[in-house]
Amino acid sequence: MSRPRALSGFPEWLPADRAVEHLITVALSQTFELHGFASLRTRSVEPVGVLLGNGETDKEIYGLNRLREDPDVDGGDSGDRAEPGLGLHFDLTVPLARFVTENAGHLHFPYRRYQIQQVWRGERPQEGRFREFVQADIDVIGDGSLAFHHEVEVAVVAAQALASLPIPPIRMRVNNRKLAEGFYLGVGLVDVSSVLRAVDKLAKIGPDRVAAELTARAGATSEQAEMCLAFADVRSDPGADPARLLAEIESLGVRHERLDEGLTELAAVLTGLEKAVPGVAIADMSVARGLGYYTGTVYETEVAGLERFRSVCSGGRYDSLATIGGRRFPGVGISIGVTRLVSLLLSGRLVQASREVPTCVLVAVPDETDRGRCDAVAGALRARGIPTEVAPSAAKFGKQIRHADRRGIPYVWFLDPAGGHEVKDIRSGEQISANPDTWNPPPQDRHPTVGAAKPTSSQATEETL
Amino acid sequence: MSRPRALSGFPEWLPADRAVEHLITVALSQTFELHGFASLRTRSVEPVGVLLGNGETDKEIYGLNRLREDPDVDGGDSGDRAEPGLGLHFDLTVPLARFVTENAGHLHFPYRRYQIQQVWRGERPQEGRFREFVQADIDVIGDGSLAFHHEVEVAVVAAQALASLPIPPIRMRVNNRKLAEGFYLGVGLVDVSSVLRAVDKLAKIGPDRVAAELTARAGATSEQAEMCLAFADVRSDPGADPARLLAEIESLGVRHERLDEGLTELAAVLTGLEKAVPGVAIADMSVARGLGYYTGTVYETEVAGLERFRSVCSGGRYDSLATIGGRRFPGVGISIGVTRLVSLLLSGRLVQASREVPTCVLVAVPDETDRGRCDAVAGALRARGIPTEVAPSAAKFGKQIRHADRRGIPYVWFLDPAGGHEVKDIRSGEQISANPDTWNPPPQDRHPTVGAAKPTSSQATEETL
Repeated sequence: MSRPRALSGFPEWLPADRAVEHLITVALSQTFELHGFASLRTRSVEPVGVLLGNGETDKEIYGLNRLREDPDVDGGDSGDRAEPGLGLHFDLTVPLARFVTENAGHLHFPYRRYQIQQVWRGERPQEGRFREFVQADIDVIGDGSLAFHHEVEVAVVAAQALASLPIPPIRMRVNNRKLAEGFYLGVGLVDVSSVLRAVDKLAKIGPDRVAAELTARAGATSEQAEMCLAFADVRSDPGADPARLLAEIESLGVRHERLDEGLTELAAVLTGLEKAVPGVAIADMSVARGLGYYTGTVYETEVAGLERFRSVCSGGRYDSLATIGGRRFPGVGISIGVTRLVSLLLSGRLVQASREVPTCVLVAVPDETDRGRCDAVAGALRARGIPTEVAPSAAKFGKQIRHADRRGIPYVWFLDPAGGHEVKDIRSGEQISANPDTWNPPPQDRHPTVGAAKPTSSQATEETL
Repeated sequence: MSRPRALSGFPEWLPADRAVEHLITVALSQTFELHGFASLRTRSVEPVGVLLGNGETDKEIYGLNRLREDPDVDGGDSGDRAEPGLGLHFDLTVPLARFVTENAGHLHFPYRRYQIQQVWRGERPQEGRFREFVQADIDVIGDGSLAFHHEVEVAVVAAQALASLPIPPIRMRVNNRKLAEGFYLGVGLVDVSSVLRAVDKLAKIGPDRVAAELTARAGATSEQAEMCLAFADVRSDPGADPARLLAEIESLGVRHERLDEGLTELAAVLTGLEKAVPGVAIADMSVARGLGYYTGTVYETEVAGLERFRSVCSGGRYDSLATIGGRRFPGVGISIGVTRLVSLLLSGRLVQASREVPTCVLVAVPDETDRGRCDAVAGALRARGIPTEVAPSAAKFGKQIRHADRRGIPYVWFLDPAGGHEVKDIRSGEQISANPDTWNPPPQDRHPTVGAAKPTSSQATEETL
């Protein structure tokens, strides 16, 4: 086999970094389950027709083909030849919609699920953007109707999930399709989609070119374009009274029924978020991405210091996730880009794992004839939930301690010939007598944790210089 | 969108069944971590050349193609055009070997990893056999050498992982390549691969046809064929003294150095397994599958009552998982077929989850104006790790209790207008006063669990009749 090399866009982490991804994924699951979301795993493939939907997708889909077409496999009762072409899913929403329509008769609505899986997009890789990546989604799906309060709930769960991680502060930016649509209609612009597409480019091309596009594409007068820009410029401060936001938007002098409805909803989302996760949420009328398909609240989330990479957690309300005949399934959901988030945190050296292995204790082996006794010690520790491994060889103790040190294992256990036991914290050097049936590590040492990265010695040197 | 339908070979579980798969997967991870195995996630794709290896694979590989070849994506610095074709991995061993050689300079050996991921094979689907399925693998990889005791360890970890699940008893069948090879060489048969291929068919085609194949393909005399069949017939009873096994094989009168080495190793694996997980392991000389590529211990594992589906957990020792130039990475690993195991348990109605959602408590909503108070109760319960959801609407209490009952949520929480709190166990009907800051469910109710399936009422009726 020739020497393999990394594939651009298909990230893999070395153990220390994978520990970060794994612990973050586990923490997200725990928050989702604490809020009663049930795990779902869908298949990775869908018929291409399902992925293409109504043909509007701009996603680069990976199709599948079998390298060796075996008539023995294709023939017979599997009906494989008649099967449509298959592709890998590019998000977790399309499979959810298909799963819900396929199994509507067996699900209890509102159906609350979380799903943490890979998705694939054949796009050009760049920092924070991959061809294979993991998303963590939560959605609440109703049958026929879905109460507005779930729009608050989903935002709260996502904000709590992210805020509980040992990462820099997050900023959740909230907007509302009804509000935006009501405003633009109130201004007199009926081609709301074109307005939204133009406003979405604000950060990228600036207000002058957005105004030009509003005139050229959405039929806006220069006064109307100015109103749109003034509206897109509205954002609230964290923790601000939603009444101030309402006043600011009202001061623009536009009136429309949908605008009022949207304002009421936006205020409720901000109030709910502020109560549950203070200081995280703001209203931001420049958030336009997604307003084309979302029908109510829209969320985007940035991490402090990583704003230039834009949102790591987005979603919103959609009135029809799926339909069967006349039966409609509205939903609200949000998706955390796990790979994107973790890769940005790691490349920014913002987080690190306390160790690269789950092991809390390494049992040192004095001599290969003692391995049975060492296994017994390890078994006693594991029986009480302490992750333990036995040293791979009866090397000199210095080498066995190095084995632990290299992996970040905090404790080394020693047996002496007389049957005594001692455990050493190799960070402090403290060594004490211990009983494998009763000794416990401090709670923070039992399992690896993720925390803010400490500067490496070379970084420290650079900073000192 | 036309009504979607299930794709043969791409299983998906409804919430109650997914809960079983999820809880089993989490339990496996916990056992692996308790033994110091670190999580690894590899990309799902490999260059086709890596998957095909030395051309010996008989796996049906899914290749990838991008549905819309976009020159803007392909061109430029991504170098995509020059990239080899990609395929989905068909197991977790090939990616591990590639990962180890690619990152050998950054890994600490022996490298202990577990990996729970989907794999894909374009084979004909049948019961317990899928096109997309999850495997849970553990491996220990050495650099240059790897001590034999890891062959005991890996078997023990897998047996403990399976034995700790609420499933019927398992039977781990162990053999050893050195033992088998030594025996067949000692008999005078040098084409060991052909002997192994013939013996592997024993259960399928019976001893007479195996003898015929040994004569035709492996150049055996009828006496030699008879010796091979006598050897393949040797198996130990659970818990039997390995000395009896040794005596039985010695009584066949064949002598070879490798045979002795293999017997010593096999006895050590059996002794280690018996000590750690009593009654699970037996020696079985008819286990021949995998002996073609494994170089030491070989494992297969069946579940009581599901023997006809053969092994759900297999593996062994390989002297060269991978090589870089003259550097060799020996390993020992074992793979649990999670989807296979779960699907067989579910279709045999052998297991079920205590509930289909993580939720332990549903907070009933007396009136929509009380939702804020209900959210506060839920927050207090969640702060102490109790999975809680708030009822989706202020329906009649009977309907809210049915909401909990349908999902298996055991507790419903009631607020009264005076500010009092009560919690009802909807299984027993018992209702007590409770404080959201101090009340705890019994430990077994806090999270869903998997247990032996209770007969459904229709099954119970059948049994009674």
